[in-house]
Amino acid sequence: MRAAVFRASHDIGVEEVPNPVIRRPGDAVVRVLMACICGTDLWAYRGMTDRRPGQRIGHEFLGVVEELGTDVTGFAVGDLVVAPFVWSDGVCGYCAEGLTTSCEHGGFWGQEGSDGGQGEAVRVPYADSTLVALPSEAASDQRLLTALLTLSDVLGTGHHAAIGAGVRPGSTVAVVGDGAVGLCGVLAAKRLGAERIIALGRHPARTELARTFGATDVVPERGEAAVKAVRELTRGQGASAVIEAVGTERAMRTAVGIARAGGSIGYVGVPHGSAAGLDLDVLFDRNIALRGGIAPVRRYIPELLPAVLDGTIDPSPVFDLSVGLEEVSAGYRAMDERTALKVLVTL
Amino acid sequence: MRAAVFRASHDIGVEEVPNPVIRRPGDAVVRVLMACICGTDLWAYRGMTDRRPGQRIGHEFLGVVEELGTDVTGFAVGDLVVAPFVWSDGVCGYCAEGLTTSCEHGGFWGQEGSDGGQGEAVRVPYADSTLVALPSEAASDQRLLTALLTLSDVLGTGHHAAIGAGVRPGSTVAVVGDGAVGLCGVLAAKRLGAERIIALGRHPARTELARTFGATDVVPERGEAAVKAVRELTRGQGASAVIEAVGTERAMRTAVGIARAGGSIGYVGVPHGSAAGLDLDVLFDRNIALRGGIAPVRRYIPELLPAVLDGTIDPSPVFDLSVGLEEVSAGYRAMDERTALKVLVTL
Repeated sequence: MRAAVFRASHDIGVEEVPNPVIRRPGDAVVRVLMACICGTDLWAYRGMTDRRPGQRIGHEFLGVVEELGTDVTGFAVGDLVVAPFVWSDGVCGYCAEGLTTSCEHGGFWGQEGSDGGQGEAVRVPYADSTLVALPSEAASDQRLLTALLTLSDVLGTGHHAAIGAGVRPGSTVAVVGDGAVGLCGVLAAKRLGAERIIALGRHPARTELARTFGATDVVPERGEAAVKAVRELTRGQGASAVIEAVGTERAMRTAVGIARAGGSIGYVGVPHGSAAGLDLDVLFDRNIALRGGIAPVRRYIPELLPAVLDGTIDPSPVFDLSVGLEEVSAGYRAMDERTALKVLVTL
Repeated sequence: MRAAVFRASHDIGVEEVPNPVIRRPGDAVVRVLMACICGTDLWAYRGMTDRRPGQRIGHEFLGVVEELGTDVTGFAVGDLVVAPFVWSDGVCGYCAEGLTTSCEHGGFWGQEGSDGGQGEAVRVPYADSTLVALPSEAASDQRLLTALLTLSDVLGTGHHAAIGAGVRPGSTVAVVGDGAVGLCGVLAAKRLGAERIIALGRHPARTELARTFGATDVVPERGEAAVKAVRELTRGQGASAVIEAVGTERAMRTAVGIARAGGSIGYVGVPHGSAAGLDLDVLFDRNIALRGGIAPVRRYIPELLPAVLDGTIDPSPVFDLSVGLEEVSAGYRAMDERTALKVLVTL
């Protein structure tokens, strides 16, 4: 089959790779209908994460079940399914607690020896606990299908950030990061009942989308000026709930600066220097909590799926560029150059 | 009156200072019966915090109301009262939320222009919201009075750490720090229903006290060896609730290392390098939350006071040395040299 492969820094392309086959009785093989490129894939593209030439890539996909191991009971061939970005056994202590990203038998699409989401098909371990069924009618609705694809990562990650930030009805929320995850954080915060949502960003297309998703205020300033601006909007106190969806030192420094005493920072930006922006003296003095991490999105799908299906939330506009699998390298370039917000890969 | 005064690094002694007087209608003057020396006073003693010669010191005290401003309605002259380590107005947004340490009109005993707890009397701003009445019978019970004194800081701070660590019935808790706060963290965790409490420490008198307070296991190892030992006690996973009650890099590094995925670190050790021990990559991968900070102990007194009065918890053994006010410098020396765990100052 054809699949995206990491060759070297700034060189990800499509190659012929072995077809996935059932290896264990709990496996499924899923024929991919839609995949996409994540901000974290960019770290690999830029050569900033440890990845070997030939390794697969992509961890977000939905598709149709093509083959099932003998132990799989929850799915039938032909079912439309979405996969979270981590597979999980569903039975270990962590899975029982909903922390599927710490599953004792879990793993990531694209890790060595596994298929990536950006390819024609994927072998899915622990299919019964990993995959989630989607209504078959969705397959004929491109807009809905695109919205459902966000359940595999960005929507659940934005939701995780909002949960970590402690968003509840009436909250004042500030969102650092105008990427797809930050925007999904806006959407999640709105769904959780936030009254005021301050989006930090200066890219017009993105801040417009933030407003569509529920942002009540947009702060284009950066750094100290952004902190000042958010404080001016919040009677000098800052936001009780802060979402940090970048992972850099500057983003975290801003998040700390705009957090209200007694509030929480929900962080989902993979740390790339953000520890240096985490001023512990400030967190201590103001009793600001830091909660977040890699999002156990599998846990959130049952809650978020109905909201996407009934149109309560529509995350599909985070995709502003669509490419075919063979053009995936153009998709990476577009995201790397920030000409695209998030790239859909259709098959 | 006589009061402890910071003169220079390693030189805190008792001097004659002005008697406190009512300055505002909400003030009270409290005649001190008991005060004590806190681990954070040691940072001042060692010259590691910004303090000017002549500045008062001590932030934990209980005593008898001697004089009242005209606006004070909740107390009468002669009432036995305990003071939390921060005064607070009781009406601002933060106070309404229980975050008294962020009170818009709050302050610390011993800050410039205010009395310290280690002295014969203290002017108490916002007396109605700051002070808490104690039963007058307690005045004749030295053991009980000593236990009640811990409400002013260490007991509430240990409780705040346990809350930050997410302790609940059945929790497995690990406590980094065998000082008075760490030990009160053990006591608080036990009261909150922790099933297993692992105390890290190697000082026999302290670890014995930890066991008295409810520790089920003691780990004398340090650093990496401590992490290994705690993991061995917890099926390799670590403790869901970790209390960090030191504030140093090593303590925080250990706290991160022994925290179970999905758990929380409740930190109350004033950061003195601890940020460097906060490995954000690990927190992120394991979804470990960091919650804590300066404890709003005023908020906790109504909950903890009954437990101390009815003997559910007895924190009084954290005091292992008692000195008169005139001997306070000997008390500092003893704590600095770790020959005393916590020093009571009686008047």
